[in-house]
Amino acid sequence: MQIAILGGTGDIGEGLAVRFAADTTHPITIGSRDEAKAVERASAYESRLAERGIDRDIAGAANAAAAADADVVILAIPPHHVGDTVEALADADVLSDQVLVSPAVGMQGDGDGLHYRPPSIGSVSELVAARAPEEVSVAGAFHNLAADRLADLDTDLDLDTLVVADDEAVRETVLELANELEGIRALSAGPLANAAEVESVTPLVINIARYNDDLHDVGVRFH
Amino acid sequence: MQIAILGGTGDIGEGLAVRFAADTTHPITIGSRDEAKAVERASAYESRLAERGIDRDIAGAANAAAAADADVVILAIPPHHVGDTVEALADADVLSDQVLVSPAVGMQGDGDGLHYRPPSIGSVSELVAARAPEEVSVAGAFHNLAADRLADLDTDLDLDTLVVADDEAVRETVLELANELEGIRALSAGPLANAAEVESVTPLVINIARYNDDLHDVGVRFH
Repeated sequence: MQIAILGGTGDIGEGLAVRFAADTTHPITIGSRDEAKAVERASAYESRLAERGIDRDIAGAANAAAAADADVVILAIPPHHVGDTVEALADADVLSDQVLVSPAVGMQGDGDGLHYRPPSIGSVSELVAARAPEEVSVAGAFHNLAADRLADLDTDLDLDTLVVADDEAVRETVLELANELEGIRALSAGPLANAAEVESVTPLVINIARYNDDLHDVGVRFH
Repeated sequence: MQIAILGGTGDIGEGLAVRFAADTTHPITIGSRDEAKAVERASAYESRLAERGIDRDIAGAANAAAAADADVVILAIPPHHVGDTVEALADADVLSDQVLVSPAVGMQGDGDGLHYRPPSIGSVSELVAARAPEEVSVAGAFHNLAADRLADLDTDLDLDTLVVADDEAVRETVLELANELEGIRALSAGPLANAAEVESVTPLVINIARYNDDLHDVGVRFH
């Protein structure tokens, strides 16, 4: 399964890229608006993995080229850009039977902490679905994973991630894919209509890290 | 510390009552709009505890009488009634230096699952603060605990609960109180402004229980 990680030069993108590279055999392409930056970061991730004895090719490409060949496109893009990115991919005619996976969360900070601020449609995942061509499948996943913890391969994750998608087969595909990451257990949270409650865990875990001295890069387990 | 559990005849109220009775020595009063019902349920909880060899007095009273003598008043009341209940207590002149603790969450269900629907002020905890007299302290806690799991004393909880309050000393009081429950770890999520992200975990854990066959009465641990 070919995986493209758009925004793969950012911190969540890096974490997902190195984890998928280290824990799976799926071909991985880093996407960026800036092709040269994507190539440079992909090579940097390869070097990080090589230092750990993991010999892995990671490709870098402009977003549209990365998405064109992929089976799964992870949109590791800030929430206020992700809609435009999806429309740009649609306009470039590179979206057809991919699964788009949205990990982004709308948040706003103030003196008290971070607050969940979804787009008016209800959630970023639903925004992606609304702006993608009708035939393209959309899921939400990987929202509540701290970027630093994800990127640090010396850290056991031992965390859950929640998957939402309207199509059950798509949900199953993303659940299986996420479960391939070591230390990650993927759970279903149902259709996209349930995405807001999943996304809003992200500001919560950041607030918990802020207000409890012994907790850092907080994640969640359900049981 | 005298604890009143208003709405203590309901399912979350029952769970909190029997856990506080079993795990602490604080005097406990069950409050209800219907005094006779409160007395009857308090006696039923006593019997349940006696069957386990726990000799414990639990009082029953009308809400206002229960709250009048309490140090901590837990509002285990449906979210659409809790504001009126707080105003009724204020009108009855029984609120002064108590800490009000709000575990209620506004939710609405449809075919997809449960969705977080806070009051327009932002959260039930903030609604309670807005409708309580100014000198009364308000905290949010015990939102994300499944009632059946809480009420079943044979079940190890091994769960977190999140506490929000604007006054740090009040937050500390409620954290300490919640930590007295066996198998509960209380974490701070900061001021009341952060309550919405705490409350919205409740519909999420119910959705997770619905969409994952091997999970029931789901709760959460942060780490």
